[in-house]
Amino acid sequence: MRVEDMPAGSALDRIASLRAHLPDSQVLDRNALATRDPGWDASNLDAFALVRPDSVAEVARLVAWCQAHRCAFVPQGGRTGLVGGSVTTPEQLICDLGALDRIEEIDPDSGIAVVQAGVTLGALQEAAAAVGLHPGLDLAARGSATIGGLIATNAGGITAFRTGVMRHRVLGLEAVLPDGRLLDDMTRVLKTSAGYDVKQLLIGAEGTLGIVTRAVIRLDPLPNGRATALLGTTGAARALDIVRHLQGGSAPLLAAEIMWSGFAAVTCAALGLDSAQLPLRSPCLLLVELGGASFEAARTALEDALAALVETEPDLDGIVCASIAQSAQLWRLREDTDALYRLHPQAPSYDISLPAREFDGYVARLRPALKAIDQAIEPYLFGHLADGNLHIVLNQPGPLQPDARTAIETVIYDELRGLGGSFSAEHGIGSKRIAALKRNADPVKLALMAELKRLFDPDNLCNPGKIVA
Amino acid sequence: MRVEDMPAGSALDRIASLRAHLPDSQVLDRNALATRDPGWDASNLDAFALVRPDSVAEVARLVAWCQAHRCAFVPQGGRTGLVGGSVTTPEQLICDLGALDRIEEIDPDSGIAVVQAGVTLGALQEAAAAVGLHPGLDLAARGSATIGGLIATNAGGITAFRTGVMRHRVLGLEAVLPDGRLLDDMTRVLKTSAGYDVKQLLIGAEGTLGIVTRAVIRLDPLPNGRATALLGTTGAARALDIVRHLQGGSAPLLAAEIMWSGFAAVTCAALGLDSAQLPLRSPCLLLVELGGASFEAARTALEDALAALVETEPDLDGIVCASIAQSAQLWRLREDTDALYRLHPQAPSYDISLPAREFDGYVARLRPALKAIDQAIEPYLFGHLADGNLHIVLNQPGPLQPDARTAIETVIYDELRGLGGSFSAEHGIGSKRIAALKRNADPVKLALMAELKRLFDPDNLCNPGKIVA
Repeated sequence: MRVEDMPAGSALDRIASLRAHLPDSQVLDRNALATRDPGWDASNLDAFALVRPDSVAEVARLVAWCQAHRCAFVPQGGRTGLVGGSVTTPEQLICDLGALDRIEEIDPDSGIAVVQAGVTLGALQEAAAAVGLHPGLDLAARGSATIGGLIATNAGGITAFRTGVMRHRVLGLEAVLPDGRLLDDMTRVLKTSAGYDVKQLLIGAEGTLGIVTRAVIRLDPLPNGRATALLGTTGAARALDIVRHLQGGSAPLLAAEIMWSGFAAVTCAALGLDSAQLPLRSPCLLLVELGGASFEAARTALEDALAALVETEPDLDGIVCASIAQSAQLWRLREDTDALYRLHPQAPSYDISLPAREFDGYVARLRPALKAIDQAIEPYLFGHLADGNLHIVLNQPGPLQPDARTAIETVIYDELRGLGGSFSAEHGIGSKRIAALKRNADPVKLALMAELKRLFDPDNLCNPGKIVA
Repeated sequence: MRVEDMPAGSALDRIASLRAHLPDSQVLDRNALATRDPGWDASNLDAFALVRPDSVAEVARLVAWCQAHRCAFVPQGGRTGLVGGSVTTPEQLICDLGALDRIEEIDPDSGIAVVQAGVTLGALQEAAAAVGLHPGLDLAARGSATIGGLIATNAGGITAFRTGVMRHRVLGLEAVLPDGRLLDDMTRVLKTSAGYDVKQLLIGAEGTLGIVTRAVIRLDPLPNGRATALLGTTGAARALDIVRHLQGGSAPLLAAEIMWSGFAAVTCAALGLDSAQLPLRSPCLLLVELGGASFEAARTALEDALAALVETEPDLDGIVCASIAQSAQLWRLREDTDALYRLHPQAPSYDISLPAREFDGYVARLRPALKAIDQAIEPYLFGHLADGNLHIVLNQPGPLQPDARTAIETVIYDELRGLGGSFSAEHGIGSKRIAALKRNADPVKLALMAELKRLFDPDNLCNPGKIVA
């Protein structure tokens, strides 16, 4: 029986069936879901029920139930994804991984963590920091984003230029496939060349090829101290020169975040910071962070490195944080992107990557091209400079009308492939970027993706309508 | 017409047909192949013909010809793979990537190289070094191994613990699929989350899912100088402590190679080195290399780091290289594995990984277990300590009889999965590790591999008999 054929009233029957089938899992019906925060997307909790399995075996039982009842299922982690990868409809069931929140093991000597999918990045960072290690991934949503969701989107974030994207942090993976089989590839080693690395397909598949349940994550040593500076620059090219200079020193460069002044002006005002204290008159701001044996050591290394820069550029503007608290404040200037969305509700946002040396030219072409569509459009620009990841948020309320949407996407995306970039750097495709994917990806890759989806999920029950549609 | 149905004498017809179809490619027949060096495996050149396309378009035309003639084709790079991934039979055709040997671009500013599949690792290292960069991969076969082959086996080598395995170095990939379609995913950026990352399947597929033709490789800064020390230790645990100590310093650790004394005794004798000058009385040797602004700076950093170690371990034995030439000599002690095979022709060899902290226990169990099979068996042990990659070569001529082979593989492989290790770390599966793969891999992964092979190559024409058989 297909979902659309179900008789009226069957939601109650299905919930009773689920409760009988999964006695150890929490099952919430629509009434219960209506009282919950849906997260980033209002449609995240539109399903007829949410099941919260408390073990991997229960996840497999849930998927088996869904197959038997031809019921579409949507895995959910932190529900803070930005491209509608977790949205649901009333015929669908949510598989909430939140109860799989155990850090099963941290082995400092081997530098690995074994974690369940529902562990938040922040929880893993904290547990790893207790033994001087770090998962090699960091992003503003650390408090909500889960390991399962980060794997599903192949997340990148702040440290990717140095420690890789999520794909590079995953040593082992376990997942329940759409047909209920358990893929068990929980390798704890970096080197394995043992047949097709099937788990790589699950990484970045946004839950459409299976549900990630556990993973082995590589950990790196964590500097004891870190110090931050905010510098005013003329543009991305100059900022990149500074980054290269800092990378040539012996203290590790931990972050290289870029903000154009329009962005920083908004977050600065939202945070109530004194703009006169910050280099906000420069067209472009660079937030850099160096590591060291202590805060003081890192700060000294940063001051020395910047002093050498000032010799060649006497009017280099900026501040080095005087304390850990001030460093946190500078970070909020970069991370408080919510301020943009309060100003422009549901503002259209884009997440692209291109070789960083191309940033200035790209931005110089982007502004007038957006204005040619509508004189009122201004882009807020910010991102992760060292790996070429640029975020663009428009000063417009969303969602856009279809015509404007297509015109704007054309302007933002069309030249990226020719530059070797990507129209989707780290947020994924979800349900909102499918049209862009079809227009911007290699047709052979698109065809293979559809073939792979049919192979893994012939009945299209596993997070349908995402990526491949 | 299937190959096995071909009438006698058809090889000549097929070669004439190939030459007509591919006027710009070199085509060698069996007589010409008989005079050539087959490389590591005597069966590499047993095909009825070898075609050497001089462009990606010609590779696609060759594959189309093979599909039209139902002819199996085997991609070949340096022909120095160790597990029979390139062996051929008289019904098969070789697609030799050797003419695709152009480094198309090195962009120092973005830290990327665009290369064709037939470029050797050594050639790329040299071109990158000219602008102060390195492909982040190094191994003893650098002079023969090609980028295409390294991608096909997801190679690891010496630097993987710091800069990742080949999968982590590949930003973009182009490949001719078994049906002749061209997969074009030549991204130049680290961050892309744009649908299923299909190219990941090609990495490590040993040419069974398509022929890699071009790639974008990530480059890292190369220290100007490097200095090497050879230390005698009691075992892997102590060696790992030394590695952790060196990793805690500010000079980057570039290599951490381990050799048990039986191995070093053979290579030392083969090279005619004076064993009295080397710490060969220790059970285990550790070769470490630090980077620095110059050879002298690196050597000073190494001496200082070791001096701190000697304070806690006064009888630490070893030598720090006095010159770049002596450093090269220490490396030959580690890399001249040919000496083993001259002593024991076709000696059985194994390539495993496991958490490095488990090495000593594993080796302590391994020796008596091998002796229990045959008192004469001694393993030579060496490998890449920092990423847990251990190579094992037996002091026996090969190939082994089937019974002994199974018994030995059971001893060497069976506990690895439980330790989170891999029975195949960096050499791949090829034709020689298929039985081991079936015994040691997750059954669901094996089933998915077979399904993926059928999806990509339903007629099993693309490097048949490798990995999936």
